[in-house]
Amino acid sequence: MTVLGAIEAGGTKFVCGIGNEQGEVLERASFPTATPAETMENVISFFEGKGIEALGVGSFGPIDPIEGSDTYGYITTTPKPHWGNYNLIGKLKEHFDVPMGFDTDVNGAALGESIWGAAKGLDSCLYITIGTGIGAGALVGGKLIHGLSHPEMGHILVRRHPEDTYEGTCPYHGDCLEGLAAGPSLEKRWKVKGHELSVDHPAWEMEAYYLAQALMSYVLILSPQKIIMGGGVMKQEQLFPLVRSKLQELLNGYVQHPSLTTDIDQYIVSPGLGDNAGLCGALALAKEKLSR
Amino acid sequence: MTVLGAIEAGGTKFVCGIGNEQGEVLERASFPTATPAETMENVISFFEGKGIEALGVGSFGPIDPIEGSDTYGYITTTPKPHWGNYNLIGKLKEHFDVPMGFDTDVNGAALGESIWGAAKGLDSCLYITIGTGIGAGALVGGKLIHGLSHPEMGHILVRRHPEDTYEGTCPYHGDCLEGLAAGPSLEKRWKVKGHELSVDHPAWEMEAYYLAQALMSYVLILSPQKIIMGGGVMKQEQLFPLVRSKLQELLNGYVQHPSLTTDIDQYIVSPGLGDNAGLCGALALAKEKLSR
Repeated sequence: MTVLGAIEAGGTKFVCGIGNEQGEVLERASFPTATPAETMENVISFFEGKGIEALGVGSFGPIDPIEGSDTYGYITTTPKPHWGNYNLIGKLKEHFDVPMGFDTDVNGAALGESIWGAAKGLDSCLYITIGTGIGAGALVGGKLIHGLSHPEMGHILVRRHPEDTYEGTCPYHGDCLEGLAAGPSLEKRWKVKGHELSVDHPAWEMEAYYLAQALMSYVLILSPQKIIMGGGVMKQEQLFPLVRSKLQELLNGYVQHPSLTTDIDQYIVSPGLGDNAGLCGALALAKEKLSR
Repeated sequence: MTVLGAIEAGGTKFVCGIGNEQGEVLERASFPTATPAETMENVISFFEGKGIEALGVGSFGPIDPIEGSDTYGYITTTPKPHWGNYNLIGKLKEHFDVPMGFDTDVNGAALGESIWGAAKGLDSCLYITIGTGIGAGALVGGKLIHGLSHPEMGHILVRRHPEDTYEGTCPYHGDCLEGLAAGPSLEKRWKVKGHELSVDHPAWEMEAYYLAQALMSYVLILSPQKIIMGGGVMKQEQLFPLVRSKLQELLNGYVQHPSLTTDIDQYIVSPGLGDNAGLCGALALAKEKLSR
């Protein structure tokens, strides 16, 4: 068995795991995201002596995932205290001399879903998480999207719902997708936690309107073979049928493909890896790095 | 010298060319897009006896560019009379037993620009044409974007300009990007041809607002290393600085990369292949097919 290490580096906690090439997680531990010194000490201790043959890191961003770049492996311009311009991969390399894969948490999740999850066997898919923020990653032609850097799909602009007067939470764009549709905006707009809203509350129709607009852009720009929606907000299962029907309404028959017409229930789905999507994503980054 | 054939299959004309692997077009001819029988007779005659070793076709869409699909090589659901469900590559294969590359005109143009043009040497770029319609193609990790099918980026939704009361021309979406910003909508909104509007007419600020919104989505979703803007409307050179500054305004510093800050004049550019972008794109599809 090949022993793979995985780190899901999040803004509130780092989840570390040991797994294998079948996507099985055999051991895990979680550490709060404190200062890099504290957190990384915990992370490094966790992996020591485990004999990992490769390590995958799916991280909060923005990061530099472009190999050959001067700041490859860094968390870059995050506003999170202490973590701006932090050389995460460099630190790990000081302790573990193994191949390391490094990408955004959502790019990792997209890769993991394409290997073991809801998009198994496909060479394109999109993974979007709607939680305290909104992020998405995608695989195109079997490769995770990179270019100037990594995608930042949560910040695309959407049209405001005619009944929405909430100004949006995004410090950069105000009412971009994340500003209008992430968990905190739901809470601020309706003055209660999202999970306290009844399943037939108008909040969900509005939420679906925003998410469907985003999916419309993703479909028209990327044409992914599968769309996987995860994160805390998507635990509200009533959102799935709403998002699917809104997307069909918005596309209005323009893209003629069964995935967008008769088979849309199998096109827009929950993560096949469930709540393991993030950690398995990091595992997938390790596996991919090893196979290259 | 390797002799390559190229077809830029457009809705009003088919441009055919003979070229080489350096992207040079040595001979060309143009035939009106009439019925498939008429047009293809001209096209086939043009290539007969020329000794082409591969053929590239960049076509108007929608098409099926997915190899292995039952309708690979077809123009599919186009409303254009006679061309719906037309097996374009099948017809060409009856006459020429050579490798054939087949993609959208704009995907072809993106590939051509990445080999010989403004995105030379880059493994990601986006090519958008703004003319009688709006279409875009893109290269990600060295590959043209395919998934369910090909992108249809011209139909993404944008926010309406506060002073725009025009309802939009798109038969599917009304006021999507193409509906609000392609040549025909300019003409209908302002009651004159686009090129008759003075360079300081408010039309251009409005046009730039729509195009910059589209570019914002493309940047956040694809992170391309270069954006190339072509087509009839982009002959209005005053649009370039307007689009660049609107994009910076909309992104509001969110993506920290020199290409979007100090170097934006070299990031959003005209086609390096000029008016040959389409035909060279088809040539690039031939070259790529031969090298695979």
